[in-house]
Amino acid sequence: MTRKPDNPPAISPTREEDYAEWYQQVIRAADLAENAPVRGCMVIKPWGYAIWEEIKSYLDARIKDTGHQNVYFPLFIPLSFLEREAAHVQGFAKECAVVTHHRLEEKDGKLVPAGELEEPLIVRPTSETIIGDTFSRWVQSWRDLPLLINQWANVVRWEMRTRLFLRTTEFLWQEGHTVHATAQEARDEAQRMLNVYRELAEEVLAIPVILGEKSPGERFPGAEHTYTFEMMMQDRKALQAGTSHDLGQNFSKAFNIRFNTADGNLEYGYMTSWGSTTRLIGALIMTHADDDGLRLPPRIAPYHVVIIPVLVKPEMQEEVLAYAEKIRASLAALVFCGKPVRVHVDKREMRGGDKNWDWIKKGVPLRIEVGPRDVVSQKCMLTRRDKAHTEKENVTIEHLISSLSSILSNIQETYFSQALEFQKRHTHRDITTFEELKAFFTPQNEDRPEIHGGFVVAKWCGDPESEAKLADLKITIRCLPFEQSGTEGRCCLTGKSATLDAVFAKAY
Amino acid sequence: MTRKPDNPPAISPTREEDYAEWYQQVIRAADLAENAPVRGCMVIKPWGYAIWEEIKSYLDARIKDTGHQNVYFPLFIPLSFLEREAAHVQGFAKECAVVTHHRLEEKDGKLVPAGELEEPLIVRPTSETIIGDTFSRWVQSWRDLPLLINQWANVVRWEMRTRLFLRTTEFLWQEGHTVHATAQEARDEAQRMLNVYRELAEEVLAIPVILGEKSPGERFPGAEHTYTFEMMMQDRKALQAGTSHDLGQNFSKAFNIRFNTADGNLEYGYMTSWGSTTRLIGALIMTHADDDGLRLPPRIAPYHVVIIPVLVKPEMQEEVLAYAEKIRASLAALVFCGKPVRVHVDKREMRGGDKNWDWIKKGVPLRIEVGPRDVVSQKCMLTRRDKAHTEKENVTIEHLISSLSSILSNIQETYFSQALEFQKRHTHRDITTFEELKAFFTPQNEDRPEIHGGFVVAKWCGDPESEAKLADLKITIRCLPFEQSGTEGRCCLTGKSATLDAVFAKAY
Repeated sequence: MTRKPDNPPAISPTREEDYAEWYQQVIRAADLAENAPVRGCMVIKPWGYAIWEEIKSYLDARIKDTGHQNVYFPLFIPLSFLEREAAHVQGFAKECAVVTHHRLEEKDGKLVPAGELEEPLIVRPTSETIIGDTFSRWVQSWRDLPLLINQWANVVRWEMRTRLFLRTTEFLWQEGHTVHATAQEARDEAQRMLNVYRELAEEVLAIPVILGEKSPGERFPGAEHTYTFEMMMQDRKALQAGTSHDLGQNFSKAFNIRFNTADGNLEYGYMTSWGSTTRLIGALIMTHADDDGLRLPPRIAPYHVVIIPVLVKPEMQEEVLAYAEKIRASLAALVFCGKPVRVHVDKREMRGGDKNWDWIKKGVPLRIEVGPRDVVSQKCMLTRRDKAHTEKENVTIEHLISSLSSILSNIQETYFSQALEFQKRHTHRDITTFEELKAFFTPQNEDRPEIHGGFVVAKWCGDPESEAKLADLKITIRCLPFEQSGTEGRCCLTGKSATLDAVFAKAY
Repeated sequence: MTRKPDNPPAISPTREEDYAEWYQQVIRAADLAENAPVRGCMVIKPWGYAIWEEIKSYLDARIKDTGHQNVYFPLFIPLSFLEREAAHVQGFAKECAVVTHHRLEEKDGKLVPAGELEEPLIVRPTSETIIGDTFSRWVQSWRDLPLLINQWANVVRWEMRTRLFLRTTEFLWQEGHTVHATAQEARDEAQRMLNVYRELAEEVLAIPVILGEKSPGERFPGAEHTYTFEMMMQDRKALQAGTSHDLGQNFSKAFNIRFNTADGNLEYGYMTSWGSTTRLIGALIMTHADDDGLRLPPRIAPYHVVIIPVLVKPEMQEEVLAYAEKIRASLAALVFCGKPVRVHVDKREMRGGDKNWDWIKKGVPLRIEVGPRDVVSQKCMLTRRDKAHTEKENVTIEHLISSLSSILSNIQETYFSQALEFQKRHTHRDITTFEELKAFFTPQNEDRPEIHGGFVVAKWCGDPESEAKLADLKITIRCLPFEQSGTEGRCCLTGKSATLDAVFAKAY
């Protein structure tokens, strides 16, 4: 659609003009979250939190379906626990909130910390260590395995540069932690849960992903294998939306998690952990939002449909509202993807146009306007968020009811196809040398450095030291995709013979 | 039921023998939670967390029904925020976790806190201050009111003496925060939410409550009025299970929350806050558990029914399991209180008797045993947790299906009636002098100090200084109940003329 000059996009600047600022403005326009008065933290507002509740509701059911039980472990971790796994402490000690006192006292008219703790406590950046310590008591025999637990919690990582949803000092997540009797079972579990994440991303959030394993340089501190699902954002950068770790026996040895096998031996357990976070909301925005604001895939939208009564004639108000309520009740009785359709009537005292734009910016899949004439004709005006906001359809209530579920499915599919098409268009497989790689990731236009690049799938020899060359280009190996071509070629970093395909990109 | 000597209770010690230790042992036997390796914190285990999820699910729906939206505010509160409301800082500064550093560094081979913060951060003990600061930007006009939000979160209060669920350093809760245009609206809101808590307690948890207002000495730091719901535990002590505060303009003045009224004036908002916590699980245990373990009211039980296949004959195993699965499917298709019946088949390789006791101790309302003979007769053996575990009923599957919902309702009612009868039996209204009060709350038997007392409803003159006399007796005024007799009498503390009824008790 070409925009007329008198019809500017709702979000300023646009993606083309300033991508990073566009992202902040979409969040503001959709009223999802804001920076908190505490450094690096966010306040998640009702519309943003409702999206998180939909994500939780879907994922929690899948986590339970796959045999896991929810639990809750403490927020605080004794400093000594963090030290027990060598790689882990290196990865997390640099960026954690440290509790050193348990009281405040007045001194010279000012409150100061008092009651110093004998051992400082860390606010959990992740819970492998405190859960590992507890598991050493829970796991005694092969009969206790597999031990499959999950928790929904807040975690804190002291980030220097933060951005709403994508990287905040405190964020919300789920973390699964499991113990198994064999290495194979742990490997299978880590991949099973990665696949649950893939389903969440592709089928619910309508975001295509590339599944693969992290290179050693990008592995979770303390893991044997880290599996990841990588998404491409609209500025062509990669976003790691969650990870699943095969921890092998690293943590079971650090925390002495041993079990008696069926034939009487004593063995260390094999562990996994896997997590996904409020970052997924950032991924949703950067994948689907446009220059008019958020676009929510129906499966994750807090409201599938918003009904906007047009209340221009005061004498017709009551009738129009009753008609809107009748439509709401009819639609709420319908089912979409196994759940009741979520419908809201916007009764606020505001101009109809303002309300309309409000829900466009919030990304609601379907808007329905009803006015006095519609009451007479038993029709309504339907607008889809995946089409131009001027493209309205006048439909009967009967037609609306019979087609609602298929319209929502269609919007869901459209968003996924658009994102997949974008990802494929910006994934390049013809780069073979470091010079080409460098050229590809160097902005052609200095004024617009952010709109360039994409994913490069190229050969890599697997030498961990070669990854250092990528720092200058500000790119990383995002993953070694599970889908491998199997062909032989030259490593794009070292020129050595290589068969492994790797995905290279700039990343959030 | 008289117990035979060869049939001792499952929990040792019994309530009579050692109430405090009995409580710990019920938690252990039902596998609800355990002490964490971090001082004063707990690990909530799957069965305990599943109960919390049922509480959340009910309460979250009621909070949304009453017009509130969920949000999420940061874990950390800048020290300076705490200082802004004078009474509030007095109440909470004494017992908080203080974050002073944001990094760990190695020094002489040891990790030590580094990166000192310019301003220390408090781990939220409650969120009035950080939410108040944000509300000062959200509230501008009368059109923004009422502002009705809630969050589910963890909070930390550095308690010296802790006890699982009842008082822990970290606990889980919901906290509602609202702003209104008038004092009356705020008062109404605080009482409306207290009533939501009453419904949760009485109708879902089957725990009778006394609703009332806290005396000034027991008020929330910074509140104008604190409303409470008080429960009587089986050792006759009171438990305050949650509170709802009318904050008046105290926090809106401290945080400058002002709005333009419809007629153009600028006025401070009127606020409320209200919270309930994982302490409710402690209340459930102390109200309903008996000497065989937990007894869960059906409306809150993670499983309504557990089916125990009796697998003595290996050649019949498959058939018995198929029969158990058939019963499970039939029952899971039924509805109890608007939700599907929750049924579990216990297929573990364990003796039937051990499984049976496991579910008795976990408090599941109904147990169904099925063995080879039942497959032939299409019957099963039914045992209710509210009756003796020897009182089994052989019923047809048809009968089971048709009566299940009414059996569950009946168990729910039985637990409530038993608790109400206990509360009434131990509530005394005939005490008029301080001497009588003192005698009542002084143990008659020095060996058994914990089993005595109860609630005393007596006259109080309302003089805040008179409450000091209660400290020696280790009792407090639990509340000024909404149900007032209206009669005149003598204050049981001062002897002055008084009309106010107050509830006196020892409390958790």
